[in-house]
Parts: sequence; C-alpha cells; structure tokens
Amino acid sequence: MKNVGVLGAGQLGRMLALAGFPLGFRFCFLDPTANSPASEFAPQIVAPFEPGPGLDELVSRSDVLTFEFENVPVSMVEPLVGKIPVYPPPKALSPSQDRLLEKQLFRKLGMETVAFRAVDSMESCLQAVQELGLPLVLKTRRLGYDGKGQKRAHSLEEAKAAFLSLASSPLIAEAFLPFDRELSLVAVRGQKGDCEFYPLVENHHNQGILHLTLAPAPNLDPRLDLLAREQVEALMRDLDYVGVLAVEFFEKDGKLIASEMAPRVHNSGHWSIEGAQTSQFENHIRAITGLPLGSTCMAGPCAMVNLIGSLPAIPKILEISGASFHDYSKEGKPGRKIGHVTLRGPDWRAVKAALKQCHGLLPEGVRQLPFLA
Amino acid sequence: MKNVGVLGAGQLGRMLALAGFPLGFRFCFLDPTANSPASEFAPQIVAPFEPGPGLDELVSRSDVLTFEFENVPVSMVEPLVGKIPVYPPPKALSPSQDRLLEKQLFRKLGMETVAFRAVDSMESCLQAVQELGLPLVLKTRRLGYDGKGQKRAHSLEEAKAAFLSLASSPLIAEAFLPFDRELSLVAVRGQKGDCEFYPLVENHHNQGILHLTLAPAPNLDPRLDLLAREQVEALMRDLDYVGVLAVEFFEKDGKLIASEMAPRVHNSGHWSIEGAQTSQFENHIRAITGLPLGSTCMAGPCAMVNLIGSLPAIPKILEISGASFHDYSKEGKPGRKIGHVTLRGPDWRAVKAALKQCHGLLPEGVRQLPFLA
Repeated sequence: MKNVGVLGAGQLGRMLALAGFPLGFRFCFLDPTANSPASEFAPQIVAPFEPGPGLDELVSRSDVLTFEFENVPVSMVEPLVGKIPVYPPPKALSPSQDRLLEKQLFRKLGMETVAFRAVDSMESCLQAVQELGLPLVLKTRRLGYDGKGQKRAHSLEEAKAAFLSLASSPLIAEAFLPFDRELSLVAVRGQKGDCEFYPLVENHHNQGILHLTLAPAPNLDPRLDLLAREQVEALMRDLDYVGVLAVEFFEKDGKLIASEMAPRVHNSGHWSIEGAQTSQFENHIRAITGLPLGSTCMAGPCAMVNLIGSLPAIPKILEISGASFHDYSKEGKPGRKIGHVTLRGPDWRAVKAALKQCHGLLPEGVRQLPFLA
Repeated sequence: MKNVGVLGAGQLGRMLALAGFPLGFRFCFLDPTANSPASEFAPQIVAPFEPGPGLDELVSRSDVLTFEFENVPVSMVEPLVGKIPVYPPPKALSPSQDRLLEKQLFRKLGMETVAFRAVDSMESCLQAVQELGLPLVLKTRRLGYDGKGQKRAHSLEEAKAAFLSLASSPLIAEAFLPFDRELSLVAVRGQKGDCEFYPLVENHHNQGILHLTLAPAPNLDPRLDLLAREQVEALMRDLDYVGVLAVEFFEKDGKLIASEMAPRVHNSGHWSIEGAQTSQFENHIRAITGLPLGSTCMAGPCAMVNLIGSLPAIPKILEISGASFHDYSKEGKPGRKIGHVTLRGPDWRAVKAALKQCHGLLPEGVRQLPFLA
C-alpha cells in the first residue's frame, strides 16, 4: 500500500499529496485539465472522468483509489469495486451528487432538513410554492456548487422565471430558511469503523462561495457539536464510509438543520493543516490506506480565509502574527479559489485582530464580509 | 522569486520542498546520488558537487540557491556570488567545514568552548596531550559527521594510535568534557537581519548519531536559553547570515559550551514541523526568499525520535497518541537515518509516556537509550 490514485488534481488533491508524502505514499492523479495544481509534484494523467485508457492507467499505477471531488461519475468508479479498493465507497457518491437523494437520506437518518419538494414540471413548481411558501429556493438536483445552479424566488412570478431558467435539469425546491449562521462538520472514518471529528466550524459565504471559516464555531452550544457528531457518525455508518466526509448545517434558533454533504476533504477543514494535531488531509490518507486515525485536537482558535480571484501581497500577509499561506498554483480568475490563509492565535481576540489585518490586504470586493463590519 | 535551487537532495532537501510548496515555490535539486529522497517530487540534477554543467543547469533553473548540507565545497558556491543570490552566504561554510576555524570563531565572539589545539604532527599531538590532559579527543578538522572521523584517547599510547589512524587529514585535539547534557539551538535570520529562535533543545546521541531530541530542553535554566540566543545572534550577525543555522552546545555545571555549528536546517529541529507555529524548513525558505519570518512558538512539549537502520511497524507507531511519522523514502541500512517520529502532548508526562511506547516498537539496538532506562 504505497501508491494512492486520485481522481481530480485540484487544490484538494495537491494538499492530499502534501499530507501523504511524509507518510511515504506516492501519488498519481487523473484530471481532464492539464497542469492541474497537484501535477506540480506528482504525475498527472490527463484524461476525461470516464472509463477508458486513462482510468486503466491510473488503476494500474495505484494500490488504492480516492477522489477529491464529489461529481466523479458513479459509472466511472462503480465498475472498479472488487478490482482495487475505492474509498470513500462509490455508493456515497449518489446522495452527494443529487440534492433530492441527499435530503431524503438525511431525513431517513433523523436529521432535520428544510422542507423540500422534487420539481420536474411547472405544475410541480407551482405546487411547491403553495406547499413551501415564499420565498423559496429552486436548485438543480445535480452539479451545483459555489452557489451555481440555484435561484431564490420571492413571488410566484419569480418562481416561474426561476423554473424556466433552470428547468433543463431536474430540480428541487427548498423552503427558504433565514438561518442564524452556517456551520459544518468535518469527520473521518477508518476501515474498522473508528471515527474522529473536527469541531463544528462557522462558515461565511459571499455570493455562494466560502470566504471565511472560524474554527471552532465561536459561542457554540456544545450540545449542537455533540448532536452533529452523532448525526454524521450515523450517516457514515449508513454509507459504510471510509475517509473524510463533510456535512454543512444551518443553525437556526438553537437547532441544527442539515444542508448538504461532501464525500471528500472540504474547504471548511483547511484550517486543520496548521490548527489540528492531524489535518483532514492526513486523516483522509490514513483512513483510505488503513492506518490508524490521528487526533483532531486543536491548540487554539483558527480562522481560514479563502483567497479568491487574485492574490494579495503575500509578504504583507506573512507579516501577520500567526499567518500561514497556501498557494494552489492556479491562475487568478474572478470567483476562483487560488489559495488560502490560516490565522492562528492564543484566543479569539488575537485571531480576530489578525483577521482584520488580513482582510485589509485582500483585493476590493472580497473584503466586505458582514462578519468584520 | 519562484524557483529554489538546492545543493543536496537528501531528507533535509525533501522537507525543505514540502515546506516550500504551500508557499508557491518550486524546487530543483543537485545531488550526485540518483533517486535521492527529494527527487520523489521535484526534479533532481544528478551531478557532482563541483563547478560544471550540472551546477550551471541548476543556476539557470533557479532564482535563489541554498544547500542542505555544510560540506558543499566553498569553491563550488563562492564563484556564484553576484550571479545568483546564495543563502546562507558561502562565507559561513568555511568555519562550519573546519573544526579549528569554527572554534576560533566561537572564541572570537566570546562563546565558551573546550580547550583545543591544532594537531598536524606527532609532535603537536604529544604537546596537545601535555597541555589539554587526558582523556582527550582527536578529530579530523574536516568532513566528520555522525561521530565519524574522531577518536577518544585515555592514554599517551591511545593518543599516538589515534593520531596515526587519523593523520591523513589535519586534526584538532579537544579536551574531553564530561558534560551534563547536549543541547542545541536552531535559529533563523532574515535578509533584513531580523531573527527568530527555536528554544534550546536537549539531544541524545548514540554512537555519535542523534537518536532523540526533547523540545524544549526540560528543566532548563532560562538564562541559558537567553545566553544561547545572544551568542547565536552575534554569530549570525558576524557571518551576515541568512537562513537557518544550528549550534550545538554542551551544558556543564550550569554553563553553556559551544561545540559546533551547522549552516542549514538541522536534525534537532525536525520536531518544529508539528511542534512550532512555523517549522525550521518553512522559516529557512522564508528567509532565503526574502519573506517575513514566522513565529517559532510551541503549543506544548515534543520529542523527536530518529528512525535509524530500519523502520518499525508504522501502524503501531501511528496508534501512539500525538505521533507523527516522516518517511525519508530511503533504503534501510545500519546507522542510516531513514525517518523520524515526532511525539506531541499537553505536558512532559504525556510525551514521555508516548516516548516509552515508541521506543518499545523500535528495532533492537536503537532502543536502549540511557534516557529511558
């Protein structure tokens, strides 16, 4: 068990490799985009995400296969089961790729969700408006990320327009939830069913893109952390899960409402590279290769700031006390995550001071977080 | 400033690259031994350590040059000054490569050393015995490491025999010091003369090879830590130093006696990867590329155990609470460092318990440290 094959070679794959090298693992990536971030220090097979010679080569070079994003076609990985260990198990992909199956699974396991309806016609759309009320959110069931593929409707007219603009795909309608804040839990499960959990963290999005994570979530009712762990452990058990899994929640009036899951390392867990005893990346590698999981203990609070579109002046960032910088080696482009900064401190006061300093250095447009106003 | 060229591609180079990748740097190595540890994820030019086409290629591919071991020939790097930034400055190499110049430099700067004499003839050897007393230690002035190239003499006869066996090289005789313990200080200096210091650590050698580092050195008089910092800061200033420098000391009756220096990242600083806010490797990269230095703060005590000769059962090692493993991707061979384990805990009690567990898993022969008896 030396060679890890990874579907996808973006920044998550890059950080997986950086966590796996010290443990003696070698990596090979498959990604349709040449010169992806992980290819800087590991071989990349440039091939589409489908069965074929590229995938065959990856399998032949690997002892275990994993993926760094959840939209790997199930038809690509399911036929591999039995030929090579694939973790997380492909059956975790289906509910992650379809918001309807995902919410149905959450409900089956007793996790609270917003009210939702499948929408596949104008008629079912109008019925959803009647049953869920307004405003509501229409989303494509598949392939939405970073706020793409969804529209909010405040009136019947807007609901109709949203349906027409999205209706080329099967949809889901969700009751609009004016939540108090967004949280997420990153967990990892080993091959023997052993689990470790990072603390619930607080996430701040801007136009659907994660901008800021505070770890652990400040001022959290510890019962919510416990509840989230129980729910995510049950979810992982149900899926025979192996590896890192992230679940996003809303907090509303002291309640936890499950929003979505990602069967992979997650942007809201990047702080763990410096902030936890074992990072989410190392724990994912440990899990899929059958090694014991590492402790998720934190030494102090952290903030993780995504660098989106273009990089700020890095020397200035590194002057901030407790700052670490991660460059994904990607070209800058509006809305694209090209790096992140982790800020650590002995307490929240120190971390928030560092955060203000950091945000002052970010390009206009990303810096106006209501959180820091 | 994107491309870092490194002379030497061993485990130190490997860990430099792993620390530099997240900051967006790319690496190229030069080493005469093909398939060196760093070559697993960065290009390696296989060439001797001398001026020639290999070095020319490295220079052409690099924006800054550094080295991962102190025995790079001065004649190789000195001609590069003015063509490409070389850090640490080549003039730091001479005293590091010659035990006589090194001790003379220490003395010049007011650092205490054992009494020593240059030995270049049987006559000067016998005179050293007379002046320094017995036992004494004869060492080659150059190219000694891991206990090689030195002999202890308890009698005039042994001194003569030691001289004859080593006399193909210029020698130094040192008064034997029955020290209380071995300490070392790892420091880093930036391009503007700013310095950061890791705490003094306690080192345990076995047959001349470092086996164990405890960080920070337990039960240390804080005045010694302060004194070591002052001395090393003066030393770095004297050398116009840029990068990480390590100085080994003996502690004897509450005094600090300087033993030797290494103008590079150092084995006794490996704990800093997990144990300090910024590792020695990242700080070396930050220094030589002109970035601000990072904090050297620790969250709790650490022990670093070298894995020598052959690897223990890694899954068992990773079951130890607070254990991290580093594989250098080197073939096992008696006396060869092929990996290390860092053990972290909230206090020394926890770290020592982990250490006992770890040592119980090491192959016979490396495990009998008097420290754990």
